[in-house]
Amino acid sequence: MDNLFIIKIGGNVIDDAAALESFLTDFASIKDLKILVHGGGKIATKIGEQLGLQPEYINGRRITDAATIDLVTMVYGGLVNKQIVSKLQSLNSNAIGITGADGNIIPATKRLVKDVDYGFAGDVEPSLIASKTLQLFLNVGLVPVMAPLTHDGKGQMLNTNADTIASTVATSLSAAYNVRLIYCFEKKGILTDMNDENSVIHLMNKHTYMQMIYEHKVADGIIPKIDNAFAAIDNGVDEVLIGDARDIVQNCTANVTGTLIK
Amino acid sequence: MDNLFIIKIGGNVIDDAAALESFLTDFASIKDLKILVHGGGKIATKIGEQLGLQPEYINGRRITDAATIDLVTMVYGGLVNKQIVSKLQSLNSNAIGITGADGNIIPATKRLVKDVDYGFAGDVEPSLIASKTLQLFLNVGLVPVMAPLTHDGKGQMLNTNADTIASTVATSLSAAYNVRLIYCFEKKGILTDMNDENSVIHLMNKHTYMQMIYEHKVADGIIPKIDNAFAAIDNGVDEVLIGDARDIVQNCTANVTGTLIK
Repeated sequence: MDNLFIIKIGGNVIDDAAALESFLTDFASIKDLKILVHGGGKIATKIGEQLGLQPEYINGRRITDAATIDLVTMVYGGLVNKQIVSKLQSLNSNAIGITGADGNIIPATKRLVKDVDYGFAGDVEPSLIASKTLQLFLNVGLVPVMAPLTHDGKGQMLNTNADTIASTVATSLSAAYNVRLIYCFEKKGILTDMNDENSVIHLMNKHTYMQMIYEHKVADGIIPKIDNAFAAIDNGVDEVLIGDARDIVQNCTANVTGTLIK
Repeated sequence: MDNLFIIKIGGNVIDDAAALESFLTDFASIKDLKILVHGGGKIATKIGEQLGLQPEYINGRRITDAATIDLVTMVYGGLVNKQIVSKLQSLNSNAIGITGADGNIIPATKRLVKDVDYGFAGDVEPSLIASKTLQLFLNVGLVPVMAPLTHDGKGQMLNTNADTIASTVATSLSAAYNVRLIYCFEKKGILTDMNDENSVIHLMNKHTYMQMIYEHKVADGIIPKIDNAFAAIDNGVDEVLIGDARDIVQNCTANVTGTLIK
């Protein structure tokens, strides 16, 4: 099976023009099959404020009302996505920008209202991903660049977390490729000592993870990220890597600088 | 060869939610291969005003400065394009939204500054269209929905007139399909009497056109549209139809209500 790298970048890269340019240059140089999933960054909030919208959060999640879904459809699906695509094209990477609505690649369900109404937020399910269409693109050398947007199949765009899009797409493609799902974040990897960038754990499995938790060596903030990584692996993804966007080229090799979770 | 309908809709359809919904329902019902090209509509101007941008026109063409290309990338490539795509998906049409940057489908050249600097406006050339990628999409049942945006291959998005995108794509695909290029506008077709919607000329060739001009039977405003249609035909497009968006289903048959130019 071919290797496939599914790489997610977030706001810390997107909001910094120099960091984004540097990342995309590295990304374009990766020879293996690859998919980029991007978040939104602060620009949506900034444009939203100019348009008189105030972002609202509950439990750290943005509430997506009707004006906000239009805003993020514009900013994530239009501005951010096409800036990345046109930049990659200039680097000879044949990028194609897509949302989950395009080619019905990521159908979603509007999140049910329980305690909180998250508005136009979409929940996704790996078995419903149009993985054949993604494979078709990969087969002809196209590089999918995915915005964190889905749709409900009834004409409504929905907002879906980029981490979730990345893990769902990785799961759906894990039968066809050796998938390494890579989450870029602000640190080199998972550290045993928060204050020491050299304390990266390069290889983690469930056993070492449990031991680290037992020894209180894992920072609280990173636990959900690691739990998500193990969930992706339980769903069939071969490997999850958590690392620095600046190390993307090396993290697509066997000799990683980040934390490889198997 | 298969029939292919390349259909362009403009602001008069996009700005009217009921007209757009009705058009997309009709469009989804067309069984032949098809591509939709959409313009922008007034929403970009409206959002631009909210963001403090004032549109500037020279000779009827919008000047695309740096802020405006970001605006139209957001609004045409994000909001309008994905609203159309998600709506078509709800009508069981497997739409995929693209700009000219996606898959390098429409590379363009930033318009040279002669008397007027049009800013980030892109000029296109049929021989450079990635027609194989469009054919690949059509072959697997995807329905391309194209925003009026291109790119310069150096990382910059460009603004290109939707009529031009439609005729350029039609020309590039005319070797592979029987192409009918359809321009939807506000009238039933080309009228010999501007005040009589029943005076549509259903079939026009160069000879009848010349005769109509000689007899002063053609309204001045429509002459550039007809000249463009004949230019497309000279470049290999089989047929150009000018008609009402509300008649799209019938205008994709032999028995048209609009003006068929051959």
